Amino acid sequence: MAFFPPSLENLIDKFAALPGVGKKSAQRLAFYVLSLPDGESERFAQAILDAKKSVHCCPVCQNLTDGEKCAVCADEKRDKGVICVVAEPRDVLSFERGREYKGVYHVLHGVMSPMNHIGPDDLKISELVERVSMGGVEEVIMATNPDTEGDTTAMYVSRLLKPFGVKVSRLAYGIPVGSNLEYADEATLSRALEGRREM
Amino acid sequence: MAFFPPSLENLIDKFAALPGVGKKSAQRLAFYVLSLPDGESERFAQAILDAKKSVHCCPVCQNLTDGEKCAVCADEKRDKGVICVVAEPRDVLSFERGREYKGVYHVLHGVMSPMNHIGPDDLKISELVERVSMGGVEEVIMATNPDTEGDTTAMYVSRLLKPFGVKVSRLAYGIPVGSNLEYADEATLSRALEGRREM
Repeated sequence: MAFFPPSLENLIDKFAALPGVGKKSAQRLAFYVLSLPDGESERFAQAILDAKKSVHCCPVCQNLTDGEKCAVCADEKRDKGVICVVAEPRDVLSFERGREYKGVYHVLHGVMSPMNHIGPDDLKISELVERVSMGGVEEVIMATNPDTEGDTTAMYVSRLLKPFGVKVSRLAYGIPVGSNLEYADEATLSRALEGRREM
Repeated sequence: MAFFPPSLENLIDKFAALPGVGKKSAQRLAFYVLSLPDGESERFAQAILDAKKSVHCCPVCQNLTDGEKCAVCADEKRDKGVICVVAEPRDVLSFERGREYKGVYHVLHGVMSPMNHIGPDDLKISELVERVSMGGVEEVIMATNPDTEGDTTAMYVSRLLKPFGVKVSRLAYGIPVGSNLEYADEATLSRALEGRREM
């Protein structure tokens, strides 16, 4: 039953199509946007248009940027010989927050997931292979999430890169810093033992 | 640290300002909107503009509408002598779903809440008083939520309406249909006993 005015129903549908937003939440969000003071609703709409217009993938690393290249790829001081491969743009943010990593990135924009019909061709994998094939890359660090899909994707990509003679590594598994052994799961503990280092 | 392009940061901020949306969710929503296929992001923005432009409050009952009056107020068959007062437009939807109620509505657009600095003047209460003062109204049913703020608002409004000699009622408290007595809370059970009817 369409009860609200059509334009409002339409806005609710748009919100309901967002990930993790149900029908009830969509109603709440739509009402909220309409109740914003003068000009604010229009600025919300404009923010979408502006971002969509100016933001695109960096031609080198596929991270989101509004420039010709992203800030990391454009930085002369970053080591172009080391590529950290992540699933999502937000993962780049996690590494940059640490201010430790000096190499560059490659964003796959997802992981392989047969359940969701996402195969290698839906990801920016061929762009990575091309990048490595051009030479100058010493190491590729696979930094996808430590779950089944992340592991599968890392394994798949590493096999593709092997022929180029480049070193492919995976982030270390182990107990998180500051955590409590009591709450560590068995899989993590077993990996932490496996990867133990001499002190 | 602003890491994403400014236009993307701006869009994330807009999403983060929505109720119940945190910074992480806002990032996810912004990325999703940008990743929509050609034209879809623009249609999202347009949906906001269209809804904001065409939707306004019905001059009679204050419910959201895109017409001169809302569908209920414009309906000749509805009993204009009975007004059901609700807090939000979505509450009208709940009653209409039942197809039982034949009267009209009045939407307050919120409830009194000292904690959130929402007083009577922030609600559409004066519009209700004016409506009742024009005559022709026999009964006003207070249908705000059965919680402290809803009860307070109902009490406040009923006092304002008393001088006009109109009957003011409150929705019945009791055990919900199809529920299990075992799980009913004490306050509800006590109200259900209090309001018992002869069979």
